[in-house]
Amino acid sequence: VAKRLEKFKTTIFTQMSMLAIKHGAINLGQGFPNFDGPDFVKEAAIQAIKDGKNQYARGYGVPDFNNAIAARFKKDTGLVIDPEKEVTVTSGCTEAIAATMLGLINPGDEVILFAPFYDSYEATLSMAGAKVKCITLRPPDFAVPIDELKSTISKNTRAILINTPHNPTGKMFTREELNTIASLCIENDVLVFTDEVYDKLAFEMDHISMASLPGMYERTVTMNSLGKTFSLTGWKIGWAIAPPHLAWGVRQAHSFLTFATSTPMQYAATVALQAPDSYFAELKRDYKAKKAILVQGLKDVGFKVFPSSGTYFVVVDHTPFGLENDIAFCEYLIKEVGVVAIPTSVFYLNPDDGKNLVRFTFCKDEETLRSAVERMKEKL
Amino acid sequence: VAKRLEKFKTTIFTQMSMLAIKHGAINLGQGFPNFDGPDFVKEAAIQAIKDGKNQYARGYGVPDFNNAIAARFKKDTGLVIDPEKEVTVTSGCTEAIAATMLGLINPGDEVILFAPFYDSYEATLSMAGAKVKCITLRPPDFAVPIDELKSTISKNTRAILINTPHNPTGKMFTREELNTIASLCIENDVLVFTDEVYDKLAFEMDHISMASLPGMYERTVTMNSLGKTFSLTGWKIGWAIAPPHLAWGVRQAHSFLTFATSTPMQYAATVALQAPDSYFAELKRDYKAKKAILVQGLKDVGFKVFPSSGTYFVVVDHTPFGLENDIAFCEYLIKEVGVVAIPTSVFYLNPDDGKNLVRFTFCKDEETLRSAVERMKEKL
Ligand SMILES: CSCCC(=O)C(=O)O
Ligand SMILES: CSCCC(=O)C(=O)O
Repeated sequence: VAKRLEKFKTTIFTQMSMLAIKHGAINLGQGFPNFDGPDFVKEAAIQAIKDGKNQYARGYGVPDFNNAIAARFKKDTGLVIDPEKEVTVTSGCTEAIAATMLGLINPGDEVILFAPFYDSYEATLSMAGAKVKCITLRPPDFAVPIDELKSTISKNTRAILINTPHNPTGKMFTREELNTIASLCIENDVLVFTDEVYDKLAFEMDHISMASLPGMYERTVTMNSLGKTFSLTGWKIGWAIAPPHLAWGVRQAHSFLTFATSTPMQYAATVALQAPDSYFAELKRDYKAKKAILVQGLKDVGFKVFPSSGTYFVVVDHTPFGLENDIAFCEYLIKEVGVVAIPTSVFYLNPDDGKNLVRFTFCKDEETLRSAVERMKEKL
Repeated sequence: VAKRLEKFKTTIFTQMSMLAIKHGAINLGQGFPNFDGPDFVKEAAIQAIKDGKNQYARGYGVPDFNNAIAARFKKDTGLVIDPEKEVTVTSGCTEAIAATMLGLINPGDEVILFAPFYDSYEATLSMAGAKVKCITLRPPDFAVPIDELKSTISKNTRAILINTPHNPTGKMFTREELNTIASLCIENDVLVFTDEVYDKLAFEMDHISMASLPGMYERTVTMNSLGKTFSLTGWKIGWAIAPPHLAWGVRQAHSFLTFATSTPMQYAATVALQAPDSYFAELKRDYKAKKAILVQGLKDVGFKVFPSSGTYFVVVDHTPFGLENDIAFCEYLIKEVGVVAIPTSVFYLNPDDGKNLVRFTFCKDEETLRSAVERMKEKL
């Protein structure tokens, strides 16, 4: 394995999902629904396949889908963008992240991450030869330590990566935090890369896109995907929105990472993004109900549950159960209780920072959430 | 744009396909069929979507598809491999290439390419910080200059990239060439990365996989895809086969480039790879007929046509028509004749090496091939 990837292990999501199968455990680990995506989107995919939309898409996306992404962005943020120059379709948000890092970051550039963070951020920065600077968000509220951020920004800082709503904590960056980060970025000529794949799963406050703040669009790459919003995580359709001077770098990297993204699925995704408001309202209502079941259940089991405002994740402190750390706790949970959670230490540069915390997902049907809670009540 | 990608332009395939649309030209440029993939594969995709196979696949592939790839590889090469450890499913062969380079090549490593070459090889090597060493295959037969190869291998050579059947020339590496390269690799402890996406389009001789030569499997990454063999270039399903110690690097890079590949399409691809021999025989027969039409047509038009043994491409010398170089010729061909071809200078480290050559594809229905020939006969 190349040196740039030496320190990385098998991604925790794969590890845990495989253990779930092996032990017949209920999988509240990796974030994929155990229910299916909506019929109107599946029908659109089937139609596209039947209609022979099966050859290479244009590298940066089929025109209809680029248009639909721009229209959706306008609806969400009020910003009017050029679908031909500012939208790049990718094979999931994970590819958008890789293309952004490899397309815009040079060796030696510093990029600031907020820990805990999704593992691909660090790995793709390593591929790009960047220096990772890490700021830890701490429970209970995972607020941004502004002074630490200020002192971390240097003349070599090229970008700050933001993920809101935030995986794994469910934190949403407040308008105040985003404003402060925006000022710092403008002042220091720093870019923002923002992963907003959970934007439609915002329960306690409205989602705010960094790109919508004054002066920020021109220095922001906004990344999103179909998977979470449409319960179709296996389709791997994502995109990056950026002004032309940044989109160019993203597109160049994309064209050599995957060249293009599945054509029929792009046509289906076009239909998805045009869903009526009622679709998104219902999604949110459904997830709110699921969240209530899991959060109350985890409290009843005896966890300290940290407030989650968005995403389909919630983080708890497992220490009441006396296991040594998050990994030991998750192993016990799988083998002795039959439930899978994700240890959070893998989301930190310094694993010790996450040793008390584990993440549960509630993107499962209510029955499954209840059974998982029951198992924990009985056996923990 | 990051420095690693500064020298690269918009990929020629996208440029040319966009010009084709703009000028209403017949597109014999980018390699995608203008006919649809087989119904039994499309039906399998539709069934998988209906069956709810729509959530994240296992990162390195859904088990059925890994098994089908291993079974197909055994059929093709006689080699028995472990689908769980040696097969990695990727989002097209382009991603397999990127994952191989980023997963196995360190900065400063030397990698040998044979020019002309598919543009992503050089770009992904640049991402990996490799030094590209280039050996030019020259017409009429594009034979490997063995002495030059010997003197190019150094103690820093980490890998040789082979593409057979070869895009753009249609050259197939002979058993003798492969044997010689194999000996040199074993002697100098060099890896082989082999792109075999056109393996089922071998018309004049049998395709030989480098991995099947004695002692080579353990040092070879074999890359392939669904798109060319099943006329479904837009589905973006590829894979890399490698012994576990190499597969590990490929998998690590893959898991941070895209994480996983479309789940329903992997189920469809499983069915595709189990196609009866008659499917592959018919594909070959159809393409042989198309090739005959185009090659004869190009000769009649007045081109010097170089022999192509495989792929759905053929390379010609355009100089009888008196244009300055391949780019000028292709521009003239689009605007004045209404046919798109691909200039080959973009496939060389030194563009001048390709200035006399352009590439045509015959992955179009016979009617289209005939019309393109007619246009050229009339207007060239
Ligand atoms: C590839 S797993 C992507 C993110 C996610 O679903 C998770 O964090 O569980
Ligand atoms: C992404 S284009 C891939 C290769 C091909 O089809 C071509 O060379 O035309």
